Amino acid sequence: MKKYIGVDMGGTNVRAALVLENGEIIKINKIKTEAQNGPDSVIERVISLIKDTKGEDTIEGIGIGFPGPIDTINNVPMMSTNIPGLDHYPIGKKLEEAFGVPVYLDNDANVAGLAEALVGSGKGLPSIFYVTISTGIGGVLVVDGKCVSGKHGYAGEIANIIIDRNREKINHLNIGAVENEASGTAVTRKGQAVFGDEIKHAGNVFDLALQGNEKAVEIVDNMAYDLAVMFSVISHICEPHAFVLGGGVMASKDVFLGKVIENFNNLVHEPMRDVDFLEAKLEEPGLVGAAMLPISRAK
Amino acid sequence: MKKYIGVDMGGTNVRAALVLENGEIIKINKIKTEAQNGPDSVIERVISLIKDTKGEDTIEGIGIGFPGPIDTINNVPMMSTNIPGLDHYPIGKKLEEAFGVPVYLDNDANVAGLAEALVGSGKGLPSIFYVTISTGIGGVLVVDGKCVSGKHGYAGEIANIIIDRNREKINHLNIGAVENEASGTAVTRKGQAVFGDEIKHAGNVFDLALQGNEKAVEIVDNMAYDLAVMFSVISHICEPHAFVLGGGVMASKDVFLGKVIENFNNLVHEPMRDVDFLEAKLEEPGLVGAAMLPISRAK
Repeated sequence: MKKYIGVDMGGTNVRAALVLENGEIIKINKIKTEAQNGPDSVIERVISLIKDTKGEDTIEGIGIGFPGPIDTINNVPMMSTNIPGLDHYPIGKKLEEAFGVPVYLDNDANVAGLAEALVGSGKGLPSIFYVTISTGIGGVLVVDGKCVSGKHGYAGEIANIIIDRNREKINHLNIGAVENEASGTAVTRKGQAVFGDEIKHAGNVFDLALQGNEKAVEIVDNMAYDLAVMFSVISHICEPHAFVLGGGVMASKDVFLGKVIENFNNLVHEPMRDVDFLEAKLEEPGLVGAAMLPISRAK
Repeated sequence: MKKYIGVDMGGTNVRAALVLENGEIIKINKIKTEAQNGPDSVIERVISLIKDTKGEDTIEGIGIGFPGPIDTINNVPMMSTNIPGLDHYPIGKKLEEAFGVPVYLDNDANVAGLAEALVGSGKGLPSIFYVTISTGIGGVLVVDGKCVSGKHGYAGEIANIIIDRNREKINHLNIGAVENEASGTAVTRKGQAVFGDEIKHAGNVFDLALQGNEKAVEIVDNMAYDLAVMFSVISHICEPHAFVLGGGVMASKDVFLGKVIENFNNLVHEPMRDVDFLEAKLEEPGLVGAAMLPISRAK
């Protein structure tokens, strides 16, 4: 079976995996990113990491999940906040020179969605929309086994979708951006405004709601409605065969997901209710999805 | 050069064209739909129309643009409001039996977008989002020369996107649905509420705005902002390389489009401003796009 390298680049660690074409991981290695040493040093260390991970095996290609939007034509980061200096750095070209195989980059949320589409919960479906709900909200449309990454890699930057323009300005995102109203961070913020410092994270609010606390239930109801508006907008644009949901907030799915779906059904045309809301199931979607990039892009 | 038949099915007329693979139309024929005679009769007449249009030429395939959402796997209408009785009618299968070539159906707005993507204003671009603004608002994402039609053909039903949830309930669409706030019909309604019966259509409001009438300018400003929210949402989901804009309201583009783009730029991340807003340019996008379906689906 053909083998690929998937790389997950983060601000703290870089991990690489040797992955079979069916998505099975053979081994994973990890190094510190040490971004402070500059981009050339980071890429040299990534090359060493890949060499160690590849070992004596023959690989068909390398894929890289990167924390930021990607110019997927040239395989270059558009913006690199977590690893300073890699903006517009020719990562793809450098690695192709080092290994002599095709190298592809995409955003880390995009590759996670690609993994779920190809070998995870969305396997076999013509299209999925992957949504991750954690501190932030991100996602990607995958059609026919390919990520829709957009002109400059900003497709799937759903955090900034306006779900209600009559809200407060919170940060650089739009007023009423869904990430500021329905992410884990948003639920924490809203919980702290009501309950004070006893709220350490969104899970505390979900727990209070489960116990029947009315103010916590109200926060969760609003979050569920805001998410439903986001899902309805996505469906009216691309009507995926399924939504695949990942991210830390999904640990509390029993508290909010039913409400999301109920609201969603009221916000879409009747046949559109026949979309599945599936839970992401891969343990390492970032590594597996990165390794799938060469397969996906060759299509 | 290969030849195809494109059919544009409407509630009043059905038209068929013999089209070259480069999008050039060789001839167009037209019949009355006569929907009152029932679906079997309609399809028999469509078969005759196609035979007349094909003549002695050899065709590679047939494509049909239909006024409603389509199950694009089985080439069957999901819902047929304008031509009663064709819901779930096996149009594709009947025509394949008659002509022995592949037959494909898609929504009429989708095929118009496909035509603009392949041989119109979007020619050569990896992805476009086609938006038609007339009495209603519709659209479609075209990626790599294929329409994203959705699980049940509801992708691109952007009329129902919520751009502001604090509006009045108008009809079956969502409260604050963009079609009810920024279509030609919406501008007419809002104009009549201010100016009374002197407003016959949206063009009258645009003319008043051009003349500097403050209340008309306010209607146009609100419409432009509402459209900008819709475009920003689309870009955050699929960041097309260009928007291609069609529909009757575009006749007044000089009055509102600049304002739309200015607002859009304030609602998206900076690199996303580099999207082109192009005017649709084909005279017969429905016929040409229908004829392109066999080419597009074979990919």
